[in-house]
Amino acid sequence: MLKQNGVPLYVQLEEIFAGRIMTGEWIVDQTIPNELALCKEFDVSRGPVRQALDQLVRRGMLRRKQGRGTTVLPPKIENQLSDFYSFTTLIERNHMRPGKRLLAFDTMYADRHAMKHLALSATAEVYKLRRLRLADDEPLVVETVFIPAEICPELTAEEVASNSLYRLLRDRYKVKLVLSRQFFEPTVANEFEAHILEIEKNAPVLLIENVAYSTSNKPVVFSKAIMRGDRVRYGVELKAPFEPG
Amino acid sequence: MLKQNGVPLYVQLEEIFAGRIMTGEWIVDQTIPNELALCKEFDVSRGPVRQALDQLVRRGMLRRKQGRGTTVLPPKIENQLSDFYSFTTLIERNHMRPGKRLLAFDTMYADRHAMKHLALSATAEVYKLRRLRLADDEPLVVETVFIPAEICPELTAEEVASNSLYRLLRDRYKVKLVLSRQFFEPTVANEFEAHILEIEKNAPVLLIENVAYSTSNKPVVFSKAIMRGDRVRYGVELKAPFEPG
Repeated sequence: MLKQNGVPLYVQLEEIFAGRIMTGEWIVDQTIPNELALCKEFDVSRGPVRQALDQLVRRGMLRRKQGRGTTVLPPKIENQLSDFYSFTTLIERNHMRPGKRLLAFDTMYADRHAMKHLALSATAEVYKLRRLRLADDEPLVVETVFIPAEICPELTAEEVASNSLYRLLRDRYKVKLVLSRQFFEPTVANEFEAHILEIEKNAPVLLIENVAYSTSNKPVVFSKAIMRGDRVRYGVELKAPFEPG
Repeated sequence: MLKQNGVPLYVQLEEIFAGRIMTGEWIVDQTIPNELALCKEFDVSRGPVRQALDQLVRRGMLRRKQGRGTTVLPPKIENQLSDFYSFTTLIERNHMRPGKRLLAFDTMYADRHAMKHLALSATAEVYKLRRLRLADDEPLVVETVFIPAEICPELTAEEVASNSLYRLLRDRYKVKLVLSRQFFEPTVANEFEAHILEIEKNAPVLLIENVAYSTSNKPVVFSKAIMRGDRVRYGVELKAPFEPG
């Protein structure tokens, strides 16, 4: 079953095991065969089997439980990129309960990052929010959000903690968002992010930078989100005409 | 300048340093101030300064060079998700020279993964290609591609090595691709991927799964790509109406 083709054994095993999860041969919450059984099945030593399983644990497909063996995790939460990024909608569509927790709320002078993305001067004040987003009480995303103070001069931590930020802007401050520019890149969690998200340091996460614009094409919200890579994936559907290389 | 607000010093420093790079205060190829100078500037010990710099090295914003100090890397290659993923076009738009190298070409029975994504039976044969994509001779993506053998029965390694796969399908086999469904998730490079991409093991990468469909809505290409996280980022522009949470 395994080949001598220059691809390391553990990579071949990882692909086979991933295939079993994807196709439902190994089903969610099921305890998969133990390492020894897998060694026997593929006639290999323990090293590559363990390496393959380690990688699937890191990718959020398997979980090791003390005394219970290795079990299959549910599929990742999926988000279609044709939609504006809305955490609440995303979680509800995946039949989970969205939650949020405000971790910090500050008023400060814009730092260089915020100045650039929000087109502000060095003397402009911004609100800086840090908040945690949860799905079924599990932490999923930690967001840092910057908003120019001039557009919502009386914003308070209490309001932000109990309302949708975008709805607050629209209903109370008459600022309507019409466009969002987002950038996605893979990175790894630092100690702080790992602690808040309850994952391991250096676990894979997605960094999402977002600038949202109002009707007059003014940037009004700049945010950076760190999203757990083991629990979420993004989908996109692209139609012809295209000219792939 | 740094605050006692529960956010670790090194995270605050990371944000400040990232801001200097983003805004061009620290410019590309410039050697940034050394650790001691940064410790003095922010009145902190060496630990958090080094941790902040480590994280920016991991994120592909800085590079450490033996005997030359730490320099600023060029911005990441950007890809707009409104386009179909075409490596050649992506690289050319970023004013770089695209390259590719065929690493392996096999004919085999479809494994479960390929069977599922290409809607094949267990007795169907597929071509399995592994190829490396480069930009200015720097390895950027390693792709594994599966194609049902029945749609292009005489495909050879030589043809694949020297042509665009999509153009081959269109011109020689009269198979036109009209839709592509892609999924993105952050992960980390295993030893094999790291070796091929010339990055460190466990460095952040983007896993892109792609299924491309022909005019009759038949899945004809299934691919998995591992793309370096330190060199590429994806952008998307989303318009109203939307209902963000």
